[in-house]
Amino acid sequence: MITSENNAQLKNISVLLKKGKERQKKGLFVAEGRKMFLEACELGIVEKAYLSESYAKELGKVTCDYETVLDEVFNRIAETVTPQGVIALIRIPEGDASGIVKTARKLLLLEDLQDPGNLGTMIRTAEAAGMDAVILSKNSVDVYNPKVVRSTMGAVFRVPVFYTEDLVGLIKELNDNGFNTIATHLAAKKNYYDADLSGKTAILIGNEGNGLSDEATSAAGEKVRIPMAGKVESLNASVAAALMMYELIRCKK
Amino acid sequence: MITSENNAQLKNISVLLKKGKERQKKGLFVAEGRKMFLEACELGIVEKAYLSESYAKELGKVTCDYETVLDEVFNRIAETVTPQGVIALIRIPEGDASGIVKTARKLLLLEDLQDPGNLGTMIRTAEAAGMDAVILSKNSVDVYNPKVVRSTMGAVFRVPVFYTEDLVGLIKELNDNGFNTIATHLAAKKNYYDADLSGKTAILIGNEGNGLSDEATSAAGEKVRIPMAGKVESLNASVAAALMMYELIRCKK
Repeated sequence: MITSENNAQLKNISVLLKKGKERQKKGLFVAEGRKMFLEACELGIVEKAYLSESYAKELGKVTCDYETVLDEVFNRIAETVTPQGVIALIRIPEGDASGIVKTARKLLLLEDLQDPGNLGTMIRTAEAAGMDAVILSKNSVDVYNPKVVRSTMGAVFRVPVFYTEDLVGLIKELNDNGFNTIATHLAAKKNYYDADLSGKTAILIGNEGNGLSDEATSAAGEKVRIPMAGKVESLNASVAAALMMYELIRCKK
Repeated sequence: MITSENNAQLKNISVLLKKGKERQKKGLFVAEGRKMFLEACELGIVEKAYLSESYAKELGKVTCDYETVLDEVFNRIAETVTPQGVIALIRIPEGDASGIVKTARKLLLLEDLQDPGNLGTMIRTAEAAGMDAVILSKNSVDVYNPKVVRSTMGAVFRVPVFYTEDLVGLIKELNDNGFNTIATHLAAKKNYYDADLSGKTAILIGNEGNGLSDEATSAAGEKVRIPMAGKVESLNASVAAALMMYELIRCKK
């Protein structure tokens, strides 16, 4: 049992929570909470779990590799406000976006997304809307940031998420492969519910402050706007993404 | 000019940022950021603003009551990560939900909503979707919590927000006054895009963890679900609210 906060393994968790580069280097990220732990355990993607003494007792049999941690020590290292007695190191899935162009039918493309909560919500909504994958430009927030992981509510285990070095190039490749690539843009004239969603579709959402770049917007096959009343200048990015993705569900009715 | 963090007015701001009861007692809340300040100033709802010395110089003429604050002192008291040189005390609008039943056509009703970011996003989306007001059950998060205020992006100045002691009673009153009150519920059979949105409409969204209570669901005139693929158990509350509210816009097309 781990009885001190100075334990090297716990220090390692703390580094993995804070540093994206360390997560990439080690191929691991941190998930907290019982529900996410149990699901990851079942999926066989847990590298190692750290259970508070009392949660380990409550749980009984654990099917993945784990260590127990003294309750007081556990509570001090837990990142969330209401620690649930478990922190799990999860293996980052391998693979990249190449190939997705041939196999996917519904994609969400995000350019320079910054807010962890937004990304988490988008991944959660993407699963609900049946998207095949989420692809981010390389300057976006790290999907394995603990705030993102938490706000996916487990969807991060189930929705493939990739980064691309060249988002504009990918948009063009999707166009060439029969996708309708749809940019949401404030200056577009067509309403989002008039977009052509009959075939393979990629939805493009831009950075929270600046929207989509001109390059990405130009490369897109179709530009649409989400109408807004009042003096609102834009919608929250995860709301805009949800409205677009759910059009795909509505249009199948 | 204010030159010390121990200044009584700055201490007052700090209390107003933290304590909902103090905000209610004084009838004031705190807004940060230049855009929100300038809009509030124009609307004539600023009680007093606190400008960093350098922002005050940059701004020149200011049309509301204000004090300047030494830059270093200002930066230390600012709540946001990137302080923009202004904090404004805004007057909480008076009035309650009574009367809204007779005058409104589109309402968003929230039961025991807890997350400040969700509420802020919902108010922002509510303005964009042309809702007449947002009404919260009394156990919900405080709309004048600084995190809510910030995430409304100014919509908190423009969308009427009320609290009700008796949400179920209000739902029944809305029913009696010709509203279709629509509950979003995981167990409903009808899809949200088949709801009757032809007349006066109130959309009901429940607590993030537990959804709508049985009482509120029973009182609602119509129950709908938002279809979800994959293993997602629910959508983020602000996403669910956005999908419902935007049905009202779609259905006017």
